[in-house]
Amino acid sequence: MIRPLAISMGDPAGIGPEIIAKAWAARRQTGLPPFLAVGDARAIERVWNGPIARVSDMADAVATFDEALPILTVDDAGEIRPGQPDVEGARCALHSLELAVGLVRSDAASALVTGPVSKAQLYDIGFTHPGQTEFVAERCGVAGENAVMMLAGPSLRVVPITTHVPLAAVSGLLSVELIVAKGRATARGLCKNFGIREPRLVFAGLNPHAGESGAIGREEIDFIEPAIAQLRAEGIDASGPFAADTLFHPRARARYDAALCCYHDQALVPIKTLHFDEGVNITLGLPIVRTSPDHGTAFGLAGQDSAHPGAMIAAIAMAGDAARRRAEAAA
Amino acid sequence: MIRPLAISMGDPAGIGPEIIAKAWAARRQTGLPPFLAVGDARAIERVWNGPIARVSDMADAVATFDEALPILTVDDAGEIRPGQPDVEGARCALHSLELAVGLVRSDAASALVTGPVSKAQLYDIGFTHPGQTEFVAERCGVAGENAVMMLAGPSLRVVPITTHVPLAAVSGLLSVELIVAKGRATARGLCKNFGIREPRLVFAGLNPHAGESGAIGREEIDFIEPAIAQLRAEGIDASGPFAADTLFHPRARARYDAALCCYHDQALVPIKTLHFDEGVNITLGLPIVRTSPDHGTAFGLAGQDSAHPGAMIAAIAMAGDAARRRAEAAA
Repeated sequence: MIRPLAISMGDPAGIGPEIIAKAWAARRQTGLPPFLAVGDARAIERVWNGPIARVSDMADAVATFDEALPILTVDDAGEIRPGQPDVEGARCALHSLELAVGLVRSDAASALVTGPVSKAQLYDIGFTHPGQTEFVAERCGVAGENAVMMLAGPSLRVVPITTHVPLAAVSGLLSVELIVAKGRATARGLCKNFGIREPRLVFAGLNPHAGESGAIGREEIDFIEPAIAQLRAEGIDASGPFAADTLFHPRARARYDAALCCYHDQALVPIKTLHFDEGVNITLGLPIVRTSPDHGTAFGLAGQDSAHPGAMIAAIAMAGDAARRRAEAAA
Repeated sequence: MIRPLAISMGDPAGIGPEIIAKAWAARRQTGLPPFLAVGDARAIERVWNGPIARVSDMADAVATFDEALPILTVDDAGEIRPGQPDVEGARCALHSLELAVGLVRSDAASALVTGPVSKAQLYDIGFTHPGQTEFVAERCGVAGENAVMMLAGPSLRVVPITTHVPLAAVSGLLSVELIVAKGRATARGLCKNFGIREPRLVFAGLNPHAGESGAIGREEIDFIEPAIAQLRAEGIDASGPFAADTLFHPRARARYDAALCCYHDQALVPIKTLHFDEGVNITLGLPIVRTSPDHGTAFGLAGQDSAHPGAMIAAIAMAGDAARRRAEAAA
């Protein structure tokens, strides 16, 4: 039986509902697999005139998908005003996420795609995780630090080794253990989700020119080089550390499958510079497939029919491919 | 009288000689203004079969330029072996630079373009400046910290506020004074060299998401915001701090003339990702025009006829344009 992907709608006042609807409208020309949206159906009706189908099970969703956008509705978003988030909307976003995770954990749906939420709104209703990734990891029984965030676009995949911390704290957070753990999870994730049997990993140095042999900082020598040596000893094709500034031009990108970066902007600047409208966030290290478009709720754009669905389409396609590969590997 | 640009050849064992020759060969289709190379003519003869003319003054250089590559020769490079730098070559590179600076300082030449040198080789012969930029600044009577490095490509200009320092030291080096000084020099430099009367400057935050109002670091609040306020009070169109990761995609780049970045890789990663083969380093804050291709000696490529002259061509074109604008403004 074909199982659909489950897409949590995200904040109903953000652009999530609109880009899910636009992705469905583009399902044929982009070759998307069947999916269903999980959230308040009215949030989509507010911003889109196309056909929707309120469904109650996964078989319905697949049967309906060709003709209408299937929605498993969570009717508790209160009054929905695009661009004006509120606590009812945040609660609905959380319920939608919880339900979508459950569908995938129970094997009813094949993969999870999460729409954008507002962290500030979620914190207001008592959400205690740093973000959706950690929430999903916990629901999957995986420690947050073992869930690895990868950003992937058509010509580049990056993994930030540290994420939402002050830049001045990055050096103190690096350790051989952390870098090795991220390298292992990345290599495994590229194999499982992307079908790359012998993934080539490169590591960016922390300092300008990767430290110039210690002349401009020692983190490369103290942490990154030993971590690379350990990964290589485990049979992983890891190399570097390389100067970050010469690691992302087209000829350099052709030489690796993923670049591991020391901090948030070192990873996010190149991927968003190159693939702003089509970047996908994929969580590695989970027992399920989870992707999301690499952008936020964009409340300022909501309700104007101007949101670009490219990243949502790419997230759905990537989740579908990864789920298919995992199913084939398990068969 | 038309004055030529002076191009110091850089290390004779690097790709400098080859890319200067290739730039001359492309002078017509790329519309380059007359220039002369300053360095050991044999370094060019080693790697190129085209016509050269040893000249002794600037009028000769201009008169010859259409038919042959004019060279003011500094015949002291010893035995030249492409890809194998030595101290004689480093000495020749330094003499060439010194002579080329002198030609521009004395108004015999209109602008300076510097070929790539090896800092390690220069240090071996007692060179005490961090790089060519500081040497040129000193020869111009400008303090090194007032010479501002800008990297410029067809769709992006960036200025790193700090440069070759360990990443962990960046936060401690930021100050309102430093950021204001770089902002002023950038605004003035965009006007003088690029003819942009009211330049639009944007500032990148130091931390992920530009610190999220202090939640992920306070440098934005403590240093960058007050510096922007001061620049605005001086009538400069400065804005930010913005999250670095969303500052460099095509729609974002259209909104400013230069992005000021807190550290080396924040500036160099986007420019080299986008414009690896055509990036130009232009020094702002000098009484003369000085540009250079934004790459190194590439000893590993030297002598194989495979070096890409794009950045040298772009550096010559930019220097020619800037010199013309300055001459018009002075007239």
